[in-house]
Amino acid sequence: MPVLDRQNDVFVLDLGGGENRVDRDWVTAVDAALEEVEEAEGPRALVTTGRGRFYSNGLDLDRLSAHEEERHEFTVRVHGLFARLLCLPVITVAAVQGHAFGAGAIFSLAHDFRVMRADRGYWCLPEAGMGMPFPRGMAALVQARLAPRIAREAMLTSRRYGGAEAEAAHIADRAVAEDAVRGTALEIAAAHAAKAGDALGTTKARMFPGVLAALRDVGTAQG
Amino acid sequence: MPVLDRQNDVFVLDLGGGENRVDRDWVTAVDAALEEVEEAEGPRALVTTGRGRFYSNGLDLDRLSAHEEERHEFTVRVHGLFARLLCLPVITVAAVQGHAFGAGAIFSLAHDFRVMRADRGYWCLPEAGMGMPFPRGMAALVQARLAPRIAREAMLTSRRYGGAEAEAAHIADRAVAEDAVRGTALEIAAAHAAKAGDALGTTKARMFPGVLAALRDVGTAQG
Amino acid sequence: MPVLDRQNDVFVLDLGGGENRVDRDWVTAVDAALEEVEEAEGPRALVTTGRGRFYSNGLDLDRLSAHEEERHEFTVRVHGLFARLLCLPVITVAAVQGHAFGAGAIFSLAHDFRVMRADRGYWCLPEAGMGMPFPRGMAALVQARLAPRIAREAMLTSRRYGGAEAEAAHIADRAVAEDAVRGTALEIAAAHAAKAGDALGTTKARMFPGVLAALRDVGTAQG
Repeated sequence: MPVLDRQNDVFVLDLGGGENRVDRDWVTAVDAALEEVEEAEGPRALVTTGRGRFYSNGLDLDRLSAHEEERHEFTVRVHGLFARLLCLPVITVAAVQGHAFGAGAIFSLAHDFRVMRADRGYWCLPEAGMGMPFPRGMAALVQARLAPRIAREAMLTSRRYGGAEAEAAHIADRAVAEDAVRGTALEIAAAHAAKAGDALGTTKARMFPGVLAALRDVGTAQG
Repeated sequence: MPVLDRQNDVFVLDLGGGENRVDRDWVTAVDAALEEVEEAEGPRALVTTGRGRFYSNGLDLDRLSAHEEERHEFTVRVHGLFARLLCLPVITVAAVQGHAFGAGAIFSLAHDFRVMRADRGYWCLPEAGMGMPFPRGMAALVQARLAPRIAREAMLTSRRYGGAEAEAAHIADRAVAEDAVRGTALEIAAAHAAKAGDALGTTKARMFPGVLAALRDVGTAQG
Repeated sequence: MPVLDRQNDVFVLDLGGGENRVDRDWVTAVDAALEEVEEAEGPRALVTTGRGRFYSNGLDLDRLSAHEEERHEFTVRVHGLFARLLCLPVITVAAVQGHAFGAGAIFSLAHDFRVMRADRGYWCLPEAGMGMPFPRGMAALVQARLAPRIAREAMLTSRRYGGAEAEAAHIADRAVAEDAVRGTALEIAAAHAAKAGDALGTTKARMFPGVLAALRDVGTAQG
């Protein structure tokens, strides 16, 4: 389960050492961690990272299809989590040390910056290859972060981007050696910790009004 | 006139061997072809291409100005055609073997991918140079496909992009030798034929809600 | 104070030889100059430039905080000026010969093209570093001009871009030697003077409906 730690001005959220699936317990834990970061005061920033092969392998589709009655509530909560992260009032950096797939990949995009491992691990939106449509809010979030041609390629072809490819496509800001992923993310976060505060959260919310509306409308008729 | 053919999983729409002007008969024929592709089942994709010097030379302005009474109905139909193509539930590839101008260039942008001939032929939006404003839906479509600086340059300066320049600007995904244009487009299409289906169409519609609304509003007071 | 001059088909707006702060008198003078360019007829284009170390050093925050009662009216006028420039019916080129900070940097983005001095001078949005949120309309304008990753970096980290860096990030279209800034801008402007006219203004307004709405809503409850 995700665990929040603090190293000087940088909160580090360990997403787990397994597949780190975006399921109910994981969402609850990450949401609580984001709330703690939000409510802290003074200079601070956030790095999220996993341990081992996966950053996050996305939704637990088997469980979702076995529990149809939870699906709506869960979908609302996932979208709410991504909205909260997108406009968190601190600089956020995803240290993508392993695979990031589907909702895990989109979760990484909700951060301000992404650092990937260069030599192994894929960033991928497998939905098109699995015959699944993107929810509106998730589509809007992907498109708000990536250049039009990259959003199109990633969303329509389910291309798997290795670290260097993700850097070239500006999906990742940096692709570095395995042992430098976390350190690079910490450096970026620490460099901008002094910018934390309500003004930063307000600016982020004003940059992405359409994305936030789409993420928050998922529970309504418009979603 | 446009003619639809099928090669294994790939539909090939031949746009014609002349200037392939976007006029009433051409729009009717292309629209019928898109409907046939939509209604087919199973793995499939679409390649459009012309023969000879032109992919499509755009609107027939002489005819339009001679038949003012048709203009509104025609404008609605062209916008509807572009909206249908933009969210067609199969992967679409424009094999731009010759000039693509004005509405012909925008038609190519409504495809998911574009392959251009590298050594001859221009992609160009001549409207600004001719003193014509872009309709809202067409402006939105161009901007949804291109990086901000490229949309700005293409729309405001009427620059003519050769194939290599179009590739560098990411207007085209690939610029290749004349005899490889069609084959490259067929390869891309075939590689993604298995992704055809309602989910893909839904994702495309969710990626471009604003563009689709602007294209479909052309017949109303808002347009 | 800003002074408008004309060299053949190109209007040159001299923004001043000091810090060229975006204050009441400066806004009044620039607005009057834009109106004169709008109302002129025939082929024409606009170049804006400063003299000395600054293109424009942005808002005069000391004065604003000393005159709270003027702030709302002034904010409306600045946003209106940027909206007017964004859809001016002539091609506009910012010859950024010195520093462009904050509102001065955003003012440069409201032009169709930007030429920067390569070796000295920074383009920077210092708001995040000063704990100030961006107004909605200003955020929308920055995002309409820059690639998503550049808008994010510029707005959230307050990075100072030198000319060559700004060119690489496509904030500037060209970075050239000091003595070539003005001449390069004049060349670009003159090359497109023939495109001036209502159609060009209409196209610009149709390209940026959301930005214009956000800029113009600043005086209302929605802003």
